[in-house]
Amino acid sequence: MELKAKFSKWSAGLLVVMLNKKTALKLGVHTQGRISIKTLLKYPKEISSIIDTIEGNSVKENEILVSSEVRKRLNLRKNQKIDVNLAPESKSLILIKKKLNNKRLTREEITQIIKDIVHNSLSEPEIALFVAAMHKHEMNIKEIIYLIKAILKFGNKLNIKKEFVVDKHSIGGIPGNRTTPIVVSICAAAGLTFPKTSSRAITSEAGTVDVIETIARVEFSVKELKNILKKTNAFMVWGGSLGMVPADSKIIKVEKMLKIDPKSQLIASIISKKFSVGSNHILIDIPYGKNAKVNKKKAEDLKSKFSKIGKYFHKKIKIVLTDGNQPIGNGIGSSLELIDVIKVLDPNQKSPEDLEKKSVFLAGEIFEMTGKAKNKKGIELAEGILKSGKAFEKFKQIIKAQKGNFRKIKKAKFKKDIFSKNSGKIVGINNKKIISLVRILGCPVDKSSGIYIYFHVGDKVKKREKILTFYSETKTRLNEAVKFYNKERPIKIR
Amino acid sequence: MELKAKFSKWSAGLLVVMLNKKTALKLGVHTQGRISIKTLLKYPKEISSIIDTIEGNSVKENEILVSSEVRKRLNLRKNQKIDVNLAPESKSLILIKKKLNNKRLTREEITQIIKDIVHNSLSEPEIALFVAAMHKHEMNIKEIIYLIKAILKFGNKLNIKKEFVVDKHSIGGIPGNRTTPIVVSICAAAGLTFPKTSSRAITSEAGTVDVIETIARVEFSVKELKNILKKTNAFMVWGGSLGMVPADSKIIKVEKMLKIDPKSQLIASIISKKFSVGSNHILIDIPYGKNAKVNKKKAEDLKSKFSKIGKYFHKKIKIVLTDGNQPIGNGIGSSLELIDVIKVLDPNQKSPEDLEKKSVFLAGEIFEMTGKAKNKKGIELAEGILKSGKAFEKFKQIIKAQKGNFRKIKKAKFKKDIFSKNSGKIVGINNKKIISLVRILGCPVDKSSGIYIYFHVGDKVKKREKILTFYSETKTRLNEAVKFYNKERPIKIR
Repeated sequence: MELKAKFSKWSAGLLVVMLNKKTALKLGVHTQGRISIKTLLKYPKEISSIIDTIEGNSVKENEILVSSEVRKRLNLRKNQKIDVNLAPESKSLILIKKKLNNKRLTREEITQIIKDIVHNSLSEPEIALFVAAMHKHEMNIKEIIYLIKAILKFGNKLNIKKEFVVDKHSIGGIPGNRTTPIVVSICAAAGLTFPKTSSRAITSEAGTVDVIETIARVEFSVKELKNILKKTNAFMVWGGSLGMVPADSKIIKVEKMLKIDPKSQLIASIISKKFSVGSNHILIDIPYGKNAKVNKKKAEDLKSKFSKIGKYFHKKIKIVLTDGNQPIGNGIGSSLELIDVIKVLDPNQKSPEDLEKKSVFLAGEIFEMTGKAKNKKGIELAEGILKSGKAFEKFKQIIKAQKGNFRKIKKAKFKKDIFSKNSGKIVGINNKKIISLVRILGCPVDKSSGIYIYFHVGDKVKKREKILTFYSETKTRLNEAVKFYNKERPIKIR
Repeated sequence: MELKAKFSKWSAGLLVVMLNKKTALKLGVHTQGRISIKTLLKYPKEISSIIDTIEGNSVKENEILVSSEVRKRLNLRKNQKIDVNLAPESKSLILIKKKLNNKRLTREEITQIIKDIVHNSLSEPEIALFVAAMHKHEMNIKEIIYLIKAILKFGNKLNIKKEFVVDKHSIGGIPGNRTTPIVVSICAAAGLTFPKTSSRAITSEAGTVDVIETIARVEFSVKELKNILKKTNAFMVWGGSLGMVPADSKIIKVEKMLKIDPKSQLIASIISKKFSVGSNHILIDIPYGKNAKVNKKKAEDLKSKFSKIGKYFHKKIKIVLTDGNQPIGNGIGSSLELIDVIKVLDPNQKSPEDLEKKSVFLAGEIFEMTGKAKNKKGIELAEGILKSGKAFEKFKQIIKAQKGNFRKIKKAKFKKDIFSKNSGKIVGINNKKIISLVRILGCPVDKSSGIYIYFHVGDKVKKREKILTFYSETKTRLNEAVKFYNKERPIKIR
């Protein structure tokens, strides 16, 4: 059935359209049902969408009101005619249940699921079931390889053909662990190509993209990215807008709602993003500890899986296990982390020591992997570049190329200092509770929200000494955070 | 924050509101985030809702556009002021993951999950995770009892205080198994109180409610139901609108999307519905077979669980295991099943034999449970009432009391006969494929859609003999069904 597209700046966060009830009846679909929508162009685009229905005349019988998500996806003009039909039944649900019943999936089966996710033929509850299945029954190496291939198949690629295209990734879970902008700047300053795409924060307070977005754009077309790369050797952008790993983006959205991050999907997500930009030398940082996302055993297991995948695809993948028992740096939250990053990069400012040390170590590893530095000489080279100010210059260059502006770092509207109730030694800072705390304050969406931690584990504090500052855009969130802090006590002083 | 409620006949199928982007920013929530909404009345109602955002002026900053679902739930007037706040974080997600990790849940934990489901603090993907958890790790009797109690706690009750309040339930999965209206009519004609509430079809083609709805109303207030009961001893209505088991209704909605029906939830769903109306003598029919929802072993297990629950709550629950290997009756789909039901009830029409036999058997069991008939004399009594026309009279009385009208049975707009491609004997009719087929034709939403089967297993057919008729409201669905039929061949002739 041909219908005329109508918009109204309606942003629903998912692909949804509104039909007149009579139109829905003619099509034979019902509220919360699914239709397929196809453009009538020479190269038609097709998606599946959920429907809402409306009575009366605000959406006429020959019209279809599309959410801004649908409009963007199909690149629709006003009143453009589109072909609307019953969505075909999804075969994937059966395959997802097969995985939930602890069976292995074949390459074809995984490809089918990923295809249906990309084409929106699986609803969010159905994707939730897939996430639950992967959470319960870890995929083996074969399945993870199929998953990577499928994610890459239904996405765009950035074909960079250079000998050394480098990348790094830190498994999340450690608040403030914002090494990426520093590592990228150091490596790119040394001439390495570093096309860094990331997803937004999943279960954490912020990701590299969230941090960079406080002062620069992170969404570009593939063509624009190639231009940036020519100028600067590097970029730090959001992978989601490039359509490089669209399946991954959708799975991650549901993972966020469920606060689940299955290992197989974690690996496939990281690797597919790196491969989609053509990276061939990849460093993976796995912080571990009882306070981190993974313990030592799981970290070792991840290491072995990443190595096997590297071998299979003939890419150099190096894995380092690092200490993940407390936050890194002082600021936690997009803007506050950016301030820390700049402190490390700028030779004229005093750095948060732990953040500088870790960044230099990671950059050094990349230098050794690529032969830029000899064995055990990587850190030295990285330190030199940082001290010389070249890394900071490179960072400014990248921010400028991404249409950025340093004056954009905004302060939060509301803040509140937190004081120690007794004197003693800080014996523990609970990463998970810190993350919950900053999420209550507005992270990762409100860029200026977060906390500033004045101490690390092992430091001594006096009674009534300021240990934290909370930042938030709303009073509601500030009050909720104080309640949470008083109840959960994320910092232990003894 | 106080906002003014606005409506626009917007039906989204779930609790959702639209806020001006600026209002959302002030509240500190984002598209697809959650807020709590409270009326400012003496006895305030409170719900949790998902938000969409919109730019511009169609929803002003001091307004909130609510979907018809929100309007109904809070019983809102136009421009009514409501209090809007950040939704509290849901504790249930952690508990759901505990179940997914194969741990037992305590009474308090199950109560918390059910409370959050009722108050809309869990999203559909989160409920999907709960369904997946129950699917993977069956609850034990204790947990099922907690689940029943929690479902009942957050719902209304119909307090019928009579010695014999009877009920029956058939586990679904057998197309055309529409015994309920017949059993209700026979039992009520014999003077038993039979307050039958049901949910709508989950994974099947139709439920009792869907069938009755073709000619009568199935949604009433509790007060109206009591009046109907006084007049007729019985009713057959939708439980969902009564708010008796709201948690169950929401879980079932997600189960429908996932096409999963975990045993624990199945048992809790059935029992909580029966208890909420005050039933004390309950007959449960479990059709089994390789073609049914459960095999003999699972049927026996269900039987034992239901018995234990009956003992715990001091109610009489009897379980019968019946043959579930092929459809029952000839019509499959709401209207077509109703026609079969009337054929059985009306002494002047020829009945589908299998449907009559099973209905009489079930009514007989209820007569024996309640002492209306002596042991082994139940079927005889039931047959007598049916033959006398008293059951048909009772059925007409109930339909009339439910504002019904027999002339309302509508034919589908489109139909298509299907002929046998060869001669031979019917050796199998695949229930699951038949259900998929009629769902493609529009069941359970399009009442007049479905199929008519002219034969049963064991019957002989000739080449080019008519074996099926398809009915649908749209050509699209009719064509899809023919494609499915030709590919899947649900009827085996040899």
